[in-house]
Amino acid sequence: MLQSHYPYFARKEAPKDEESYNAQILIRAGFIEKIMAGVYAFLPLGLRVLRNIERIVREEMDTMGAHELLLPVLSPKENWQKTGRWDSLDVLFKLNARDKKEYALGPTHEEIVVPVGQKAILSYRDLPLGLYQIQTKFRDEPRAKSGLLRGREFLMKDLYSFHATVEDLESYYAQALVVYKKIFSRLGLTALQVEASGGTFSQYSHEFQVLTENGEDTIIHCPACGFAQNREINTQQEGDACPHCGKPVHVSAGSEVGNIFQLKTKYATPFGLTYTDAQGATHEVQMGCYGIGISRLMGILAEIYHDDKGLLWPESTAPFRVHLVVLYGQDEAQNKLLQEKASALYASLQSHALETLFDDRMNISAGQKFAESDLMGIPYRLVISQKTGEKVEVKKRNEQEMNMVDFSDVIQYVSIKQEIDMTQ
Amino acid sequence: MLQSHYPYFARKEAPKDEESYNAQILIRAGFIEKIMAGVYAFLPLGLRVLRNIERIVREEMDTMGAHELLLPVLSPKENWQKTGRWDSLDVLFKLNARDKKEYALGPTHEEIVVPVGQKAILSYRDLPLGLYQIQTKFRDEPRAKSGLLRGREFLMKDLYSFHATVEDLESYYAQALVVYKKIFSRLGLTALQVEASGGTFSQYSHEFQVLTENGEDTIIHCPACGFAQNREINTQQEGDACPHCGKPVHVSAGSEVGNIFQLKTKYATPFGLTYTDAQGATHEVQMGCYGIGISRLMGILAEIYHDDKGLLWPESTAPFRVHLVVLYGQDEAQNKLLQEKASALYASLQSHALETLFDDRMNISAGQKFAESDLMGIPYRLVISQKTGEKVEVKKRNEQEMNMVDFSDVIQYVSIKQEIDMTQ
Repeated sequence: MLQSHYPYFARKEAPKDEESYNAQILIRAGFIEKIMAGVYAFLPLGLRVLRNIERIVREEMDTMGAHELLLPVLSPKENWQKTGRWDSLDVLFKLNARDKKEYALGPTHEEIVVPVGQKAILSYRDLPLGLYQIQTKFRDEPRAKSGLLRGREFLMKDLYSFHATVEDLESYYAQALVVYKKIFSRLGLTALQVEASGGTFSQYSHEFQVLTENGEDTIIHCPACGFAQNREINTQQEGDACPHCGKPVHVSAGSEVGNIFQLKTKYATPFGLTYTDAQGATHEVQMGCYGIGISRLMGILAEIYHDDKGLLWPESTAPFRVHLVVLYGQDEAQNKLLQEKASALYASLQSHALETLFDDRMNISAGQKFAESDLMGIPYRLVISQKTGEKVEVKKRNEQEMNMVDFSDVIQYVSIKQEIDMTQ
Repeated sequence: MLQSHYPYFARKEAPKDEESYNAQILIRAGFIEKIMAGVYAFLPLGLRVLRNIERIVREEMDTMGAHELLLPVLSPKENWQKTGRWDSLDVLFKLNARDKKEYALGPTHEEIVVPVGQKAILSYRDLPLGLYQIQTKFRDEPRAKSGLLRGREFLMKDLYSFHATVEDLESYYAQALVVYKKIFSRLGLTALQVEASGGTFSQYSHEFQVLTENGEDTIIHCPACGFAQNREINTQQEGDACPHCGKPVHVSAGSEVGNIFQLKTKYATPFGLTYTDAQGATHEVQMGCYGIGISRLMGILAEIYHDDKGLLWPESTAPFRVHLVVLYGQDEAQNKLLQEKASALYASLQSHALETLFDDRMNISAGQKFAESDLMGIPYRLVISQKTGEKVEVKKRNEQEMNMVDFSDVIQYVSIKQEIDMTQ
């Protein structure tokens, strides 16, 4: 992508109407734009990050054998009345339409996926079944001041599983725990598996929490044995003895990045979701649900991966892998040579499927180009200038040193996949 | 994809609460599910078609140098009041939220993209700029009885272009006309470029119409010279003289698949969207907008590409390219051999990136397998049975004859891209 043709949404100052760090930095760096409290537009740079997160989540859902579908935002009041959540779910957006009927904007989709799943579930042969979507959700949050961490409109992956027996549900649930850890690891995040109250959903639940100073949750966790509980269900203080291994627990702020629930028959019952077994007998279907906040994850990555100059995207989610920056001087003939060198390298990077933003802009100082590059947080910065001669200056965004690399070695240099440093 | 593990949403009877052919056939074949009037879920098969349409549209938008972003569904009342459309747009869904404010669910996004675009448009150097999204739209339609052709919730591609001059807008608009024709051609559709009234948008507009017997629009068109106008602005009857070339015009039912408008400064003015020229003078930005109904196109493909047995997807949008069907007999040893042969072919198809649904199901008759395959409409059906011996029976969904093809030749046979027959 030629930066001279790329829309430039970055700005010098952080917006004044944002309390959260993630929204401040993502707006300043031109990744998102605020439309109103808790509602953001994803600008071209931000959408690239969002799609990378989506891709990783989708690939891992597919390894579970789950099938992707797309459920609508609008749903009838009756579905929500069946489960009692029309009245009990206080974040439910309700809409009056021309036909004098009321509709909900989906904050989660149990009430929709159960009657849909019912069409494909007749007998035990149709189970287990996993159905998921990556779709926009709506919640009328009273305090939408955390940027992408608590949106009124947000992108979510929600998987629903259907089973013949509780044992099968439990085995799938255990598999989901493993897949979730893999997803967060691929995204560059260390997520603790935390026991939590089920909230309005169910008594069986786990959250995945990333420890971050601005996190909204409080987590009691034991680094020695992995025990971790949400403050909601654990009143221990820093240094108290871990109930599992006796070592001292830590108390840290955390941000939820995913949650999984054993719904059992909570939603099957009101919708009459049953199957017939091999003997022709009828049973209720057992269910689980498994959420991941896609846009929320983008906010959490911004909260964790930054320094005082800007963002530091992990390679797996970065909007581009390489930022190729050419610095022009005063001499036109020299500039033409620099342009040719840089264009040849750009073509080579593209032919190797290394996603590159090429800062080919004239009349912008080196200082401004570097400041903008640091703000954007692309993992590899390549510089071509009169000074670099027959080499390319390569700098990783998360390292201080620069390396002078031969043109012929650049592709290999930036192709090496780095193991993500999960220790932060 | 193994069909034994694929959720089965097809049904024997068409739904009784659908008037439109596209919804009837797509529900019966298991591609979509009705949630309520004008609101559908896209099931795994249907989502694959939708993604194929999206991919083609996205590729062509990218060739125009347009940048993809993602705007939200929710937007503030003030934006719509600025343009007067809070009151004038009768299909606008309005929402009351907890904060006592009113919001719109976006039926189109001029009111959002203009203030967003404003952030990236300072000077003439930032123009032209094309911003597009593929996003869910909402319209409170009074008559939502046309299946995917008129949804209350639907997927749309909307592109907005920003220009320094009317001449630049006109040149971009001319480019969009060409790209739109290419998109519809790739989708397997012959779309007429039709002059139409601007509706609430603008006096300069073109629609793209596909002639189909269930179309909602009436088109006066001249096959001799390409002249075409919507009934809205042309009262001629069948056989009247074409105003351009004098040959007799035809009058046909059509379905709109896209529309493009020269908005000029209609939306720039209320939002004060301006740029400075090279001399530092300020001017209003000229705009165009360019829509394509993604989910609507899926409905139109179903209206056009079917026979009395089911759907006939064009190769570019088919949910799978190949339907590999194995027919088991009574002999277990023979069945094991058939299973091995079919599995080897399935692996080979996958390794050649030929998307394949593998009907590996036991205990289903050949008649049922074929009927289901015809209903689903996958372009190539490969059959392996005791009868087919050392060959594979290959049948194209849109042809009658079957061919016996050597195992070693199957990949090549199904790889040949067919020119779509646009004459229907």
